[in-house]
Amino acid sequence: MATDFYNDSLSAGCSIPPLVNRKTKSYPTKVTAGGITFGGSEVVIIAGPCAVENHEQLSETARMVKAGGASMLRGGAFKPRSSPYNFQGLGQEGILMLREISRATGIPFVTEVMDTRQVEFVAENADMLQVGSRNMQNYPLLKEVGLSHKPILLKRGMMATIEEFLLAAEYILSQGNDQIILCERGIRTFEPTTRNTLDLSAVPMLKHMSHLPVIVDPSHGTGHSWMVPTMARAAVAAGADGLIMEVHYKPDEALCDGYQSLDPDDFSQLMTSLRKVAAAIGREVM
Amino acid sequence: MATDFYNDSLSAGCSIPPLVNRKTKSYPTKVTAGGITFGGSEVVIIAGPCAVENHEQLSETARMVKAGGASMLRGGAFKPRSSPYNFQGLGQEGILMLREISRATGIPFVTEVMDTRQVEFVAENADMLQVGSRNMQNYPLLKEVGLSHKPILLKRGMMATIEEFLLAAEYILSQGNDQIILCERGIRTFEPTTRNTLDLSAVPMLKHMSHLPVIVDPSHGTGHSWMVPTMARAAVAAGADGLIMEVHYKPDEALCDGYQSLDPDDFSQLMTSLRKVAAAIGREVM
Amino acid sequence: MATDFYNDSLSAGCSIPPLVNRKTKSYPTKVTAGGITFGGSEVVIIAGPCAVENHEQLSETARMVKAGGASMLRGGAFKPRSSPYNFQGLGQEGILMLREISRATGIPFVTEVMDTRQVEFVAENADMLQVGSRNMQNYPLLKEVGLSHKPILLKRGMMATIEEFLLAAEYILSQGNDQIILCERGIRTFEPTTRNTLDLSAVPMLKHMSHLPVIVDPSHGTGHSWMVPTMARAAVAAGADGLIMEVHYKPDEALCDGYQSLDPDDFSQLMTSLRKVAAAIGREVM
Amino acid sequence: MATDFYNDSLSAGCSIPPLVNRKTKSYPTKVTAGGITFGGSEVVIIAGPCAVENHEQLSETARMVKAGGASMLRGGAFKPRSSPYNFQGLGQEGILMLREISRATGIPFVTEVMDTRQVEFVAENADMLQVGSRNMQNYPLLKEVGLSHKPILLKRGMMATIEEFLLAAEYILSQGNDQIILCERGIRTFEPTTRNTLDLSAVPMLKHMSHLPVIVDPSHGTGHSWMVPTMARAAVAAGADGLIMEVHYKPDEALCDGYQSLDPDDFSQLMTSLRKVAAAIGREVM
Repeated sequence: MATDFYNDSLSAGCSIPPLVNRKTKSYPTKVTAGGITFGGSEVVIIAGPCAVENHEQLSETARMVKAGGASMLRGGAFKPRSSPYNFQGLGQEGILMLREISRATGIPFVTEVMDTRQVEFVAENADMLQVGSRNMQNYPLLKEVGLSHKPILLKRGMMATIEEFLLAAEYILSQGNDQIILCERGIRTFEPTTRNTLDLSAVPMLKHMSHLPVIVDPSHGTGHSWMVPTMARAAVAAGADGLIMEVHYKPDEALCDGYQSLDPDDFSQLMTSLRKVAAAIGREVM
Repeated sequence: MATDFYNDSLSAGCSIPPLVNRKTKSYPTKVTAGGITFGGSEVVIIAGPCAVENHEQLSETARMVKAGGASMLRGGAFKPRSSPYNFQGLGQEGILMLREISRATGIPFVTEVMDTRQVEFVAENADMLQVGSRNMQNYPLLKEVGLSHKPILLKRGMMATIEEFLLAAEYILSQGNDQIILCERGIRTFEPTTRNTLDLSAVPMLKHMSHLPVIVDPSHGTGHSWMVPTMARAAVAAGADGLIMEVHYKPDEALCDGYQSLDPDDFSQLMTSLRKVAAAIGREVM
Repeated sequence: MATDFYNDSLSAGCSIPPLVNRKTKSYPTKVTAGGITFGGSEVVIIAGPCAVENHEQLSETARMVKAGGASMLRGGAFKPRSSPYNFQGLGQEGILMLREISRATGIPFVTEVMDTRQVEFVAENADMLQVGSRNMQNYPLLKEVGLSHKPILLKRGMMATIEEFLLAAEYILSQGNDQIILCERGIRTFEPTTRNTLDLSAVPMLKHMSHLPVIVDPSHGTGHSWMVPTMARAAVAAGADGLIMEVHYKPDEALCDGYQSLDPDDFSQLMTSLRKVAAAIGREVM
Repeated sequence: MATDFYNDSLSAGCSIPPLVNRKTKSYPTKVTAGGITFGGSEVVIIAGPCAVENHEQLSETARMVKAGGASMLRGGAFKPRSSPYNFQGLGQEGILMLREISRATGIPFVTEVMDTRQVEFVAENADMLQVGSRNMQNYPLLKEVGLSHKPILLKRGMMATIEEFLLAAEYILSQGNDQIILCERGIRTFEPTTRNTLDLSAVPMLKHMSHLPVIVDPSHGTGHSWMVPTMARAAVAAGADGLIMEVHYKPDEALCDGYQSLDPDDFSQLMTSLRKVAAAIGREVM
């Protein structure tokens, strides 16, 4: 039974901004970063540590996630931490370390940018720029990355509606940059057993409303490493175009988010099961 | 009364009541209703209309969901409606119609009970009793169904924490009835594009904490029929032991919830894809 | 500047059911229970323990809250507790104890009813029946109390929208009973430092939409006895027609909710400051 | 870094960062901006338009709010708007217009800063800098305003817990700036009839935990001009050290937020009633 999405069962008052709207484009947008394409039939895996800590940690983890099947490396150098007393990241030094190890290992990388003044430097060095949850409505930053001509990984704010998420993407698009990947990473609810509530229904909804690729972050979405494989499989079954996951070569020694990081063995096993789930819905893991 | 803290990575302060706690039992509980077993390796599908409307509607829908592959029929005779002016269900007449058509079609059924005074009558006629979201903390009702010795389908309250959900199950268990199936059906959040936010991470969390089977309701969980197949597949990938879905032989004419009901053709196609996803994680759809 | 509520700035889709709608009545409804009138110019104070525990506790507390200035006694005999292992109340014995002490002390009382089978008994003995938060959408119970011809204190569900709250009241009204007091008692949000988030804006909104009196429960709304006086004053300033507060003659020994109960001295001091705030907005505390 | 747990009745797991913690200081912090002091016995009123639109609008509104009793002017020049197609503010020109009219009218002003690159310019011209809700966890911005040596009005994020709010203030304090005013402006919940849910219990909680002044924004907190006076009175009764409210000389013509803006007559009447409520709790409106 066909239902027409736009004039039937959506909540009154939700409107889709024009540039991000799927109706304004006849085909899905593909986003290419460091030679990797998001938004096609393949499911793309991004993996790596929460934060860049030192050369050994990053190079070992990069090597292991590549061997396990990841197509892109993640790692934070500018870290948005709730407390000023937590590790704030290595900053520009971390960016340069990411670049060096990325090139040496042969795996492109994505990293977060938090400050309009950092955009130029990060854009010169990284393959993709991440705008994090806390900055989803940092409009000067959205405009600045919109001007950067780099692919952007835009994470949903932890209390952002779907409409607000699309409006944030519209800020970037309105600067002439359509290379945007949307990332569901869990929303804030009343439930305390998980760090966030992973809203997997956002995947079909975002793909229904917009032409942009959608990926899922099951690490922040759950906050428990033991739950990541299950929710990663569920995300692929829900139609995600990719996953971004925290993997650390020694999770117990991680400076941040170790409790939600997979170790390389678990990651490698997870890749095997992800390939089966992707095949079941007619896709493949890149 | 001793309560047992699961002291790994769960949020501080969440405690698991003793009878429902997985640690107190060395094996998962299997629940058998009308000859159908929940909690084994097979994924069980329950389907049917929101409400029993009349003989034709129910018998046609029952026949079609059985042909499509459902193992159990659902249908409401006592309907909890937000407004007193909405259709309130056929009451006892509806229960008897469910029984007759269930027997004639050869498919067992589950139906909701809302009032302690109805429990005896519904228990005499139905294969499984449903306690709905709005009654998850209706303690007299929980005690009464606990005394009924019938299998119970307990739906999570729309704003119930995992801990409160397990405590509601504990009320039933404490009356000597361990034949309980937990059902995630979406929680209330700030997001308006979906009727509820389907919390699929509740599936692995509930199975981590308790020994009871867990099923998912993607119909109420999303409120959009076009989204049900996607989220049904995601639920199976997340490890659900079953699904309960609204199917109506003519969704456009349904007296309630037509916008979230599948028609029999869509349901039948969905079953095919569910079998593939189940196989990908080493299970099968019954 | 006059704004017209019904067609301006309310969220689209919120509708007000007919019997509860302020537009269908030209004057506010007054509710009279045990000789006490709610909904006039006076602010009415209800106070007493969470649960009836024993004769001494109840009679001492009743005497003290009356001396302190309360017009009505509260106390639970049928207690809806999250865990089956918590004190469940004294049941019918507690109702009879409330009646005896209420008559002896000369202060009417309100008490909760949870089960349709209890309504007749409680209605025969109490001055007002309370339907608690967890039962706000227990429709058989709403209908039963609607038939009882007793004043009803209807508490907002912790997850209920304003619209759903009014629809619950409509269930009672549709049975011919308009003696309903609405009670805001805090809603569930993501904030963990308070037991609930007291939504004081519900007071002007409910009075704007409906003709029923509205009172506030700052004890459950905050979960901290030290915060109750402040929020009680704020509730009166927000236009509440009354307050319901937990007071226990020995809070440290209370079987439930002691951490949010005032002792009689604090209660008495609070009454003095409430009279000043009421006077500041042209009302008086009864 | 040591954090200090307030181990009375607060929720387990909420910790208070050291510099913001009331226990680390024996007296409340007073914040002085443009000669106006927040955090003493007086309640301070800030009023003005959502956005600076043009010279006439701002000068007329400034004159009227001063005449009505406001001590400080508010007005946005850099506007964080959900959509890129909404009016984005006059930028630097707006800041200079605020400065000119502020000086001419004899009323100091507060205005929002959104971008680290704007902090120096805004700090040179404004009496107080506002960090808005969407930027409460914009850590580079918090650090930059922390270095500015100007008073900071920090608004609570719409999704921020009390603990996160205090950690945001700690970011500013950790740069050596203790001139911070905390502002409750409503949180996001499931309730759609109000723009946000004004969490007045945050006022006593923040004052219990920290030594900083706390003010309330009933305009954004409710989203309805007709509700602002009621909630303003409730906020004063809840112990707020001040209010910030949207007032526009012609609300129907406002470029943003007209539906929640008072006109000057309503504002003037409100001031009269605020003085009475303040007096009832032993304070006065400055």
